[in-house]
Amino acid sequence: MLEYGFKDDSLSLHTDLYQINMAETYWRDGIHEKKAIFELFFRRLPFENGYAVFAGLEKAIEYLENFKFTDSDLNYLQDELGYHEDFIEYLRDLTFTGSLYSMKEGELVFNNEPIMRVEAPLVEAQLIETALLNIVNYQTLIATKAARIKGVIGDEVALEFGTRRAHEMDAAMWGARAALIGGFSATSNVRAGKRFNIPVSGTHAHALVQAYRDEYTAFKKYAETHKDCVFLVDTYDTLRSGMPNAIRVAKEFGDRINFIGIRLDSGDLAYLSKKARKMLDEAGFTDAKVIASSDLDEHTIMNLKAQGARIDVWGVGTKLITAYDQPALGAVYKLVAIEEDGKLVDTIKISSNPEKVTTPGRKKVYRIINQLNHHSEGDYIALYDEQVNDQKRLRMFHPVHTFISKFVTNFYAKDLHELIFEKGILCYQNPEISDIQQYVQDNLSLLWEEYKRISKPEEYPVDLSEDCWSNKMQRIHEVKSRLEEELDEE
Amino acid sequence: MLEYGFKDDSLSLHTDLYQINMAETYWRDGIHEKKAIFELFFRRLPFENGYAVFAGLEKAIEYLENFKFTDSDLNYLQDELGYHEDFIEYLRDLTFTGSLYSMKEGELVFNNEPIMRVEAPLVEAQLIETALLNIVNYQTLIATKAARIKGVIGDEVALEFGTRRAHEMDAAMWGARAALIGGFSATSNVRAGKRFNIPVSGTHAHALVQAYRDEYTAFKKYAETHKDCVFLVDTYDTLRSGMPNAIRVAKEFGDRINFIGIRLDSGDLAYLSKKARKMLDEAGFTDAKVIASSDLDEHTIMNLKAQGARIDVWGVGTKLITAYDQPALGAVYKLVAIEEDGKLVDTIKISSNPEKVTTPGRKKVYRIINQLNHHSEGDYIALYDEQVNDQKRLRMFHPVHTFISKFVTNFYAKDLHELIFEKGILCYQNPEISDIQQYVQDNLSLLWEEYKRISKPEEYPVDLSEDCWSNKMQRIHEVKSRLEEELDEE
Repeated sequence: MLEYGFKDDSLSLHTDLYQINMAETYWRDGIHEKKAIFELFFRRLPFENGYAVFAGLEKAIEYLENFKFTDSDLNYLQDELGYHEDFIEYLRDLTFTGSLYSMKEGELVFNNEPIMRVEAPLVEAQLIETALLNIVNYQTLIATKAARIKGVIGDEVALEFGTRRAHEMDAAMWGARAALIGGFSATSNVRAGKRFNIPVSGTHAHALVQAYRDEYTAFKKYAETHKDCVFLVDTYDTLRSGMPNAIRVAKEFGDRINFIGIRLDSGDLAYLSKKARKMLDEAGFTDAKVIASSDLDEHTIMNLKAQGARIDVWGVGTKLITAYDQPALGAVYKLVAIEEDGKLVDTIKISSNPEKVTTPGRKKVYRIINQLNHHSEGDYIALYDEQVNDQKRLRMFHPVHTFISKFVTNFYAKDLHELIFEKGILCYQNPEISDIQQYVQDNLSLLWEEYKRISKPEEYPVDLSEDCWSNKMQRIHEVKSRLEEELDEE
Repeated sequence: MLEYGFKDDSLSLHTDLYQINMAETYWRDGIHEKKAIFELFFRRLPFENGYAVFAGLEKAIEYLENFKFTDSDLNYLQDELGYHEDFIEYLRDLTFTGSLYSMKEGELVFNNEPIMRVEAPLVEAQLIETALLNIVNYQTLIATKAARIKGVIGDEVALEFGTRRAHEMDAAMWGARAALIGGFSATSNVRAGKRFNIPVSGTHAHALVQAYRDEYTAFKKYAETHKDCVFLVDTYDTLRSGMPNAIRVAKEFGDRINFIGIRLDSGDLAYLSKKARKMLDEAGFTDAKVIASSDLDEHTIMNLKAQGARIDVWGVGTKLITAYDQPALGAVYKLVAIEEDGKLVDTIKISSNPEKVTTPGRKKVYRIINQLNHHSEGDYIALYDEQVNDQKRLRMFHPVHTFISKFVTNFYAKDLHELIFEKGILCYQNPEISDIQQYVQDNLSLLWEEYKRISKPEEYPVDLSEDCWSNKMQRIHEVKSRLEEELDEE
């Protein structure tokens, strides 16, 4: 049916058409090999949360390593979109030969700081923009939402159940992984378990009960065929039918099964969980868990806990996997410097919207860690060559309201960027998920509680160094002056 | 790094773990081949819209046709998850051998009516639930949002620009296709263009201007390398710099380029579009288009139009591709009948939440079309064997508030379900996207305007036949009686 088979599909065409048009201009004009520096960042923290959790690097690496147009990609560009053969031949050999600096997955990241920095020939850096944003925007959003929800759940177990409501299949997969990064323990998605080597979880649904018509038969049949049992008790009537039948089967099977507990999937979870707990305890199943799911998010969970709900395991679906209350992160990718006559020149984008003005220049991001209390004082964005750790006394000031400032001593400035690709060569090994999970927890312990509150958290300082700030002001001034001059000439 | 390579990945594991556990119970208990009937439907229309647009069938077909566990899938289930070898061997040969009835893509669909009906051996129908929901939930959501936005845009052109904000890559791809189904003209995603044979659109971004430092040079370089030119005018100052430079280059190049127009991507689009229109007209470019993008949705577009914005082409990104104001549809998949002793018996799920009580039985959905005014009177859900078109006078009544009723005569009852798979054999040919687009428009013309208003539309009638309604009440009564009897026994 389709002229261009999807068999040799690559992700190289997973980009906006304008990227290819710009690539063509750069190439025909001969500036395509100029070294360009792009930074990837977001302007506002999602969910009004106090921090975000970066995820997406593993997939970004996979994408960049395999960046190459296939025959069918090139045929499509030439035959259907009309690109000239010489440009097509140029694209045929193109791979990613640039360098990628990135935060590690699980790094806490804040507004307006570069998560990734791409240093590459202009044409390559341009072509990869869309896919990098597509990957990082979603995965970071979900890792952040998961961490936020897990923060409310605390020591209890959090399970990711959202596949059926995810935005198509990749979101279900990578969203499950991002949920784990944010602190969840397992996913219901089996393919994600296989692909990412992460724990999977799940027992049965209402359909089992419906297929056997009554709960007693359904639970018994399940128990006959599975050692680990969680019975879903709300198909007909939770307290009058589901619970008594679950307890009856658990008693009948005794040690032949591992009666993990029961699951509630509708109704008032505070009321039902307390009643269910009591019924389990009275039947002698004091170790059996109450598992709850039903459109949960951090606010509902906090409310249920405030009312003394006796829930041991929280299954979260729709609200996590779709980032329901804010389903887009809004990360952008901006040119901050470009080669001119063999050396780098900073670039800027001006806007009448002040928060959209970019910060020019090749930069590093440091986390300023107080060596006395082992908490973070804020993040500090400096120009690439600044020696931040050499300073005994660091002045940190708000990049807009500059009078808000403090001096920091006894600090260690941790460079948050790792070198991932060096001139096209991958020089980074992805950690195991469990290590990333631990890294998130370690990072969170550096943050004061005030930044972790789920409602109206204190604003974490993300400051520019004096040099970086002055450089930005100077570039703004230059552009404004040039515009005025042009207008005068007319 | 991963023990189970992703090379022979199939989508068969793209399911919730509980489906596999239930499949095992059915198989060990020997009821896995019982014929089961599941229906897929949603309970509430998204975005408080008056209708939804169904999408997802093409992908669902692809999934079902290729449903087969691979070696690495089975190894994972056995080695990592501990399923017994006999069950693994059973799964090895499993394919989809059931029948699928479905609405066509582009069909208008309403709350509580079966979009798809699966008639298959219980085990198969169970295993495919999660993936079908994952596909239909997202694609239908986006097609609906697109139709809603396009309804406000009217005859002007709508472009899908959301890839960078989509929830990972599949969402960008299938979301672009769903946007086209809903009435959009093109997408920026090149891979979607290749995969689905749909138009792609885009010229250049701010980076081009930044790379050349000034707009005049950037536009000139673009014009030297591309016949079709749209200049993005808001990198520094839209009216004082972007617009004059775009016009200057358009004049200098004259017939050597096709000056399609300019694009606004920030600022007050009502004000700027009127000013830009005036500048273009005064320069003699009366055919040049004003293209606008910048966080647009149906409400902003309606407001801009109300203020007389002069925008010819609307680029919509984040708000469409993420279904920003309601990022989940919430479709479910419920068992409505199962074979007992060789014949079908209806099943029901009761809930303390009345809207979650399912409607039992194998059903058809009819659109009741008034033959006199060629508008739809509502949808009518009947049991499979009812002969709706034989009735001269149809009583339609609200399924909850039954006193709301009307008699319809001179109608044609259109069966909305097509047979897609018959006992595992595909017997349906996917239409071209352009045909689906036309089908949506034809369907929309059957709806009164009252149902198409984007705010507080009139509720479209979705009624049950008398037999279907009575059957539901009877099943509810049966379940309640059985529960009471069980309680009496204790």
